[in-house]
Amino acid sequence: MTAAATVQRPPFARWLATTNDITRTFLSAGRIPGLINMAGGLPAPETFPIAEIASIAREVVETHAHEVLGYGPIEGLPDLRDALAKRFSSPALALTRANVFVTSGGMQGLDLIGKLLLDEGGVIAGQFPTYLGALDAWRPRSPTFRNLVIDDPAFDAVAAIQGAQFAYTVPNFSNPTGKMVGVETRQALVDAAHATGTWLVEDDPYGTLHYDGERLPRMIELSARARPGEAYAGPVVYMGTLSKEIAPGLRIGWVIAAPEMIEALTMAKQGSDMCTSGVTQRIALAALEAGLIERIQPQVLDLYRRRRDALCAAMREHLGDWLDWEVPVGGMFVWAVGRDPALNTDLLLPHAMAAGVCVTPSSVFDASGLNRRAIRINFTLNEPERLAEGVRRLAEALTTMQAPRR
Amino acid sequence: MTAAATVQRPPFARWLATTNDITRTFLSAGRIPGLINMAGGLPAPETFPIAEIASIAREVVETHAHEVLGYGPIEGLPDLRDALAKRFSSPALALTRANVFVTSGGMQGLDLIGKLLLDEGGVIAGQFPTYLGALDAWRPRSPTFRNLVIDDPAFDAVAAIQGAQFAYTVPNFSNPTGKMVGVETRQALVDAAHATGTWLVEDDPYGTLHYDGERLPRMIELSARARPGEAYAGPVVYMGTLSKEIAPGLRIGWVIAAPEMIEALTMAKQGSDMCTSGVTQRIALAALEAGLIERIQPQVLDLYRRRRDALCAAMREHLGDWLDWEVPVGGMFVWAVGRDPALNTDLLLPHAMAAGVCVTPSSVFDASGLNRRAIRINFTLNEPERLAEGVRRLAEALTTMQAPRR
Repeated sequence: MTAAATVQRPPFARWLATTNDITRTFLSAGRIPGLINMAGGLPAPETFPIAEIASIAREVVETHAHEVLGYGPIEGLPDLRDALAKRFSSPALALTRANVFVTSGGMQGLDLIGKLLLDEGGVIAGQFPTYLGALDAWRPRSPTFRNLVIDDPAFDAVAAIQGAQFAYTVPNFSNPTGKMVGVETRQALVDAAHATGTWLVEDDPYGTLHYDGERLPRMIELSARARPGEAYAGPVVYMGTLSKEIAPGLRIGWVIAAPEMIEALTMAKQGSDMCTSGVTQRIALAALEAGLIERIQPQVLDLYRRRRDALCAAMREHLGDWLDWEVPVGGMFVWAVGRDPALNTDLLLPHAMAAGVCVTPSSVFDASGLNRRAIRINFTLNEPERLAEGVRRLAEALTTMQAPRR
Repeated sequence: MTAAATVQRPPFARWLATTNDITRTFLSAGRIPGLINMAGGLPAPETFPIAEIASIAREVVETHAHEVLGYGPIEGLPDLRDALAKRFSSPALALTRANVFVTSGGMQGLDLIGKLLLDEGGVIAGQFPTYLGALDAWRPRSPTFRNLVIDDPAFDAVAAIQGAQFAYTVPNFSNPTGKMVGVETRQALVDAAHATGTWLVEDDPYGTLHYDGERLPRMIELSARARPGEAYAGPVVYMGTLSKEIAPGLRIGWVIAAPEMIEALTMAKQGSDMCTSGVTQRIALAALEAGLIERIQPQVLDLYRRRRDALCAAMREHLGDWLDWEVPVGGMFVWAVGRDPALNTDLLLPHAMAAGVCVTPSSVFDASGLNRRAIRINFTLNEPERLAEGVRRLAEALTTMQAPRR
């Protein structure tokens, strides 16, 4: 027994007791040998442009040593901010460095938005179901969630976001549902943000992972069209990341927003991690300048499209009695909903793990934890044969648990 | 006028209004041409081992591509955690991977400790004066500060930390005062933490920047001696960083603590930035394995010792009428206190800036902002001649403002 064990430690902050066990269960799933992990949102490592990044890494340290090895500006390296401003500008959307903020991965953008806008109990109008990582990021601030059910034909954007500290959406291939928010709804949300003043967070990690059909305009673009060509000062807070376009291990993301938001984010980041590594920022910039994303994108899209099709084919063969789903036009996930409303996918999880497959139950995408009818299945990480085997194991688990069919 | 400007935005969280203007003033000082910046805590860029890091950077991406470019474990790469456990172990202090947590720079450790331990109004027993960055990290959680005035002969460690969520100390060359906490006081704080259960944060960014005299044992070492050789489970939470030993731009820090603290930090980091870049973690590990710190340390210490001496010599020549100080045996700063209690260094700052020099006023190291009698002067960034010129400008500013002499 240690000395420490004889006395009581101060309690941890209250939010720590509110994290859910399901998340821990599937986070530990990676360590189980033979388990097919279709739970996470991981890119296929064979898509990483290893040789290019290795040689860029050396080059940037040699060429920009003092900049990349010292403390950098909190808001990001000026050259990277300029490059991102250029990348996301359009005739309507006029961006400068003052509109751009570099984050240590996409998750940090969510954390800082919470830090900046949420006092205890603050209201978030969040697209429902809601990205698990966003719920994790905001949980320590005990927010109140108002669910935006965008698909609802009666959806009223103004009523939905009015009075909230911010609205949160993933318009492209929403995590977890994989759905695209249509252009009319995007416009309605933008108009509502203009009318109410509410910040509208457009989280877009998957935007370039688009397999079929036409791309839709970003909400920040729609917002800029209200005052085309003016320096952007509107309510949309656009977030992106290199994690799905190049590699997550760089931990480089960005926020594009009105200068007042960028300045406030800078105050928030100062006390969080001071600045993002200059090494990884310069690697990101050199990769952008070298056109690395455009060069690898065709193969990435082709690979993921084939995996999506393989997953959906296997699902049609094995899961149709229990689940309904739409084939997503982009992103990383298929969202499958119990045909019978009584399906409880929290109960499915241990059966699935026993059968050697892991998927994500819908409860973790609901701040209240009540949505238990669906699962999220990832198709980017595993090869087609392994996806098919995972689906067979899932069918076995549904059979074992005597899940309701329709 | 933009559409956005016609409506009111939701208010930012309350803490944002409580940040102080002094900080912003000196943060923007870097952009003024000709200004001698003695305010920040910046290392000398000429100490960065550029060629070694450049070649390591390429190597780690080539050799560990999938590990460094993918998502890593939240708590850090296993090999880096093992290496840090080995580095800080001693016969008394038995550390394993389970005691080690990797952070995105030292600042993140402070942020996560606050996230984990502070509900609104939670009490921090903080060594006074207190590191500005720690105040920044915790301000969004509106803590209550209980000042630990360790130098006070009446200092009672148990009374000082009892009932606090955690105690915060910088025992080696405290920021801002540059003072060492003596071994008796270290032992008293450790004993008090054992007796009360209070977490005792030992923030040690400067430990290796030791110029004269003998090193003192770390508090985590003293804590382990109560149960020598047992797996460490005590109340000390030790924090370190590569920012002062190799280069800040890597943004690699660590926390060494009881496994229950490491597990809780993992939950906190998940929603903050998911994981630290594998690229910079592997660079850090390779640098540790190659003995880079030991190789560059003699020159770094020699350079900084000479700069400290040059600063103190110039101060003796020009500032003795106004200020008292001790020559620090380590770290990056000299702390100079007004001989006259009426000196107000907040008022000195604009005069100093006008004279072309920037130092840090004491008010920013006090959660209440009331301590206005002292300044913190950095000596690591500038060459001796520039330090002397900075001191001359400071004397000019003190003269101009008609600062009280004694």
